[in-house]
Amino acid sequence: MILYNSQVSGNCYKVRLVLARLGASYERRELSVSDRTDRAEVLGGLNPALRVPTLVLDDGRALGESGAITWFLAEGTDLVPSDPFSRAQVLQWLFFEQYDHEPAIAAVRFWVAYSGRPEAFTHLLEERRAAGHRALAAMETHLTGRQYLVGETLTLADVALYAYTHVAPEGGFDLAAYPSIGAWLDRVAGDPHHVPMDA
Amino acid sequence: MILYNSQVSGNCYKVRLVLARLGASYERRELSVSDRTDRAEVLGGLNPALRVPTLVLDDGRALGESGAITWFLAEGTDLVPSDPFSRAQVLQWLFFEQYDHEPAIAAVRFWVAYSGRPEAFTHLLEERRAAGHRALAAMETHLTGRQYLVGETLTLADVALYAYTHVAPEGGFDLAAYPSIGAWLDRVAGDPHHVPMDA
Repeated sequence: MILYNSQVSGNCYKVRLVLARLGASYERRELSVSDRTDRAEVLGGLNPALRVPTLVLDDGRALGESGAITWFLAEGTDLVPSDPFSRAQVLQWLFFEQYDHEPAIAAVRFWVAYSGRPEAFTHLLEERRAAGHRALAAMETHLTGRQYLVGETLTLADVALYAYTHVAPEGGFDLAAYPSIGAWLDRVAGDPHHVPMDA
Repeated sequence: MILYNSQVSGNCYKVRLVLARLGASYERRELSVSDRTDRAEVLGGLNPALRVPTLVLDDGRALGESGAITWFLAEGTDLVPSDPFSRAQVLQWLFFEQYDHEPAIAAVRFWVAYSGRPEAFTHLLEERRAAGHRALAAMETHLTGRQYLVGETLTLADVALYAYTHVAPEGGFDLAAYPSIGAWLDRVAGDPHHVPMDA
């Protein structure tokens, strides 16, 4: 398999986390997150959204969207429950991440720490920081009294939400106000199959 | 089942389309899309994102996120393929819709046609219109030469993308430039199980 990857992208990290759990071998092809001028040339025909991660299977078929790629890889493993309602709860958190969490927390982190021109995004920071804190507050409320996002064990929901939550401080989000998130981050990172983002 | 619903929301329409196909009976509880001050009171404890659609099953368990709700309802029907790769392709389009398509096309439609204060969003229109046209162009390219988004039959991907695409003109998106989308919209709406948005 070939993973079109950006090492600092949390969306790509989700895929690498699942691949590491599977013990799968794959080739990484690194694309820049700041200079995206080559995306159409490299990813055209593979992913309508022209984004990383894009996974190309050994038979040449390609998938985009971290949620779809990780679901494809993880279905049938203990990361995706077999009970239909629990499966849907995992998907609920995957969609929450892509709609409420990533466009705030990942966007601010990118602007501040990786874009190379943070001043270009100053006018957007306040609204996106507030949106990020709303997403974190929703997670904190849900995780209070729970060990994992869905059920009693680690699932794809935890992997997906871990990716950008654990680097939220790079975007200036102070996680000290979210103690249940803090304990959950430690729990997810303590899983024996866990690999760090820079691996 | 109880569906917390907004009749003009495309996200809720996706759920209603799937429920209509299933012939399922359910109660609708209508929430306003413009005055959202009651969301925490009504949806707290049911949906961490405090949004419609939220579906409450007969046993009291609740699900949020249109992609998760429709997947839960449609798994095992012909809307969700059984082949793992095709399933992942359906999910890819569901995530594309929530990340690239809805935040542009649905947002502009809401600001222009439903917010009651379009002038408050004027400064955001140009960038969001451009993003919407990028999403439509990606769909047009993919649909050229194809009957449906995934495989040879109608799937949940078509239902999900139909919802906000067919009302994109309410946001000022002229679909005349996208003939393959136009033919696909007619095809989806021609399905014998289809119901209109205002049903």
